[in-house]
Amino acid sequence: MTETVDGVPASPAAVAAQSELIAPRMREHLTLTPLATFHGVADELGTEALVKCEHLQRTGSFKARGALAKVLTLTAEQRDRGVVTASSGNHGLGVALALSVLGGRGIVFVPDTASPVKVAAIRRFGAEVRGHGSDSGAMETLAREYAGEHDLVYVSPYNDLDVIAGQGTIGVEMLEQAGGCGLDAVFVSVGGGGLISGVASVLKRRLPGVRVFGASPSADAAMAASVAAGRVVPVDARPTLSDGTAGSVEDGAVTLGLCRALVDDWVLVDEAAIRAALRLVIDTEHQLIEGAAAVAVAAALARREELRGQRVAIVSCGANIAASTLAAALTAA
Amino acid sequence: MTETVDGVPASPAAVAAQSELIAPRMREHLTLTPLATFHGVADELGTEALVKCEHLQRTGSFKARGALAKVLTLTAEQRDRGVVTASSGNHGLGVALALSVLGGRGIVFVPDTASPVKVAAIRRFGAEVRGHGSDSGAMETLAREYAGEHDLVYVSPYNDLDVIAGQGTIGVEMLEQAGGCGLDAVFVSVGGGGLISGVASVLKRRLPGVRVFGASPSADAAMAASVAAGRVVPVDARPTLSDGTAGSVEDGAVTLGLCRALVDDWVLVDEAAIRAALRLVIDTEHQLIEGAAAVAVAAALARREELRGQRVAIVSCGANIAASTLAAALTAA
Repeated sequence: MTETVDGVPASPAAVAAQSELIAPRMREHLTLTPLATFHGVADELGTEALVKCEHLQRTGSFKARGALAKVLTLTAEQRDRGVVTASSGNHGLGVALALSVLGGRGIVFVPDTASPVKVAAIRRFGAEVRGHGSDSGAMETLAREYAGEHDLVYVSPYNDLDVIAGQGTIGVEMLEQAGGCGLDAVFVSVGGGGLISGVASVLKRRLPGVRVFGASPSADAAMAASVAAGRVVPVDARPTLSDGTAGSVEDGAVTLGLCRALVDDWVLVDEAAIRAALRLVIDTEHQLIEGAAAVAVAAALARREELRGQRVAIVSCGANIAASTLAAALTAA
Repeated sequence: MTETVDGVPASPAAVAAQSELIAPRMREHLTLTPLATFHGVADELGTEALVKCEHLQRTGSFKARGALAKVLTLTAEQRDRGVVTASSGNHGLGVALALSVLGGRGIVFVPDTASPVKVAAIRRFGAEVRGHGSDSGAMETLAREYAGEHDLVYVSPYNDLDVIAGQGTIGVEMLEQAGGCGLDAVFVSVGGGGLISGVASVLKRRLPGVRVFGASPSADAAMAASVAAGRVVPVDARPTLSDGTAGSVEDGAVTLGLCRALVDDWVLVDEAAIRAALRLVIDTEHQLIEGAAAVAVAAALARREELRGQRVAIVSCGANIAASTLAAALTAA
């Protein structure tokens, strides 16, 4: 690994070390989510299936971890002056939660099209919400500029080693919860790549033989394309149920190098497979997961032949799905 | 209270005492479910709303408590000989779980129309599944007869004081979790009445001023009608999303007297209100609940005017909803 961010080498070992260091702080403020056997998924998979239930995390998604990890690195003065982010969903909620528990002022830029339910949830944590246009890239640029002009800290959803180490605490918990038996294969959904970078850094440090599968919707797989190209490339994204992984990868994203180093294989799943995975979890576990989480389940199912006899783990990243989106997903062919 | 069952008086005080006695045993085998603020529901209600999350209970429903409480009263020999029940859903799962953790043989009679998912889940706990016809009353009679002929214990889903005391452990936990502030009003879904009989027995013993609201779908409210009539009466039931509360009340059910003594008011909600409550919980909490649980939420919302300024608790009884049923509920007008 040769990438550096702010002069810090973006090595998996450094990420893993930081994740292990901060894991106890997560438990003070966040939920220790179960690593649970999902029997219906295991039956379909024909082998053991352990699901890390970040859909049961506070705010309904793993993003609370990265946000909390980042805000923990700030001084009280920085937090009081203000922390800025841009997000239409889970990351904005995570930053707002982190500031509500640690104290501080949050400013979350959201698109004008953001759902009133999500805006209300962010406000409930005491953060200020600002609506600006509908283009997520432009909104992010605006938020960064605003932070720079006012000397405020900007928190990226994935292009930040502290955030990535926060997501890595999921891996720390998985190792403890899986016990001494280890894991053979792990499936993680990939959007910007923060989640898989953190989790894989930790798991591969302790379980060198584990295979890490990156899962993305075939309709929008910017990181998989960028890893294949060896540089960040634009993709012609189509709409996907997995809104949580959607969007382009930021130029110079530290996650590109981490994904190149850590992801053993990529699995792209179509929308029908994502919907089928969502239905399977609802039918057999009666738990609500969002499209981005169903992507990881669908990816494991797509590889069932090569997983026979293996101990498989799946990171279920979140539950934040609107009732209307869920309805459409459950009724589509 | 004058009813007796097997010579034991069916008094709320006796139920409460047993619930308090066995509550620690629940925690050995079952989940201590959260009593959580549901902010979206609280916003709609305009007052504090605490939800007892039995939809996060093992097996996906509170029925595991009553079943476990009953099986705990049996000898190892009785458990080994066999325990019989009739159920197309949550109660059958509860009995199967109880026997899997305590040891013993389970025989669950299910209708031929039972969903393969539920049958698979019951079998996963090691119980034997027998399909018999489609009439739940006839199936129950058959199961009771089978138990009698073979000298096996039959476990009723609600007409049993041990089962009711098991459900009452929910109240024990709610009191602890609510802290010293007490509760003003509690909404509980009612089918056969086992859940509300147990919970209300416990809560009213410790909080004499709490108002207990029984909630049922207006399409199928056998217990509300029976309480009004002063005896078990048949109702002309229509289909409801709340399949968990559906069905007639057994003649001589001990829950009738308990409901008459303990339920302060009845709230019957229509199907549109049940669907709206289900959507609200999915949209704002991203948690899956079943129709029977949505009935209690809908009932609280129906009474919002009289609840202003009060501390309201809602028992969310389960999460076992099929993806196809959920889809229909989310897309109906």
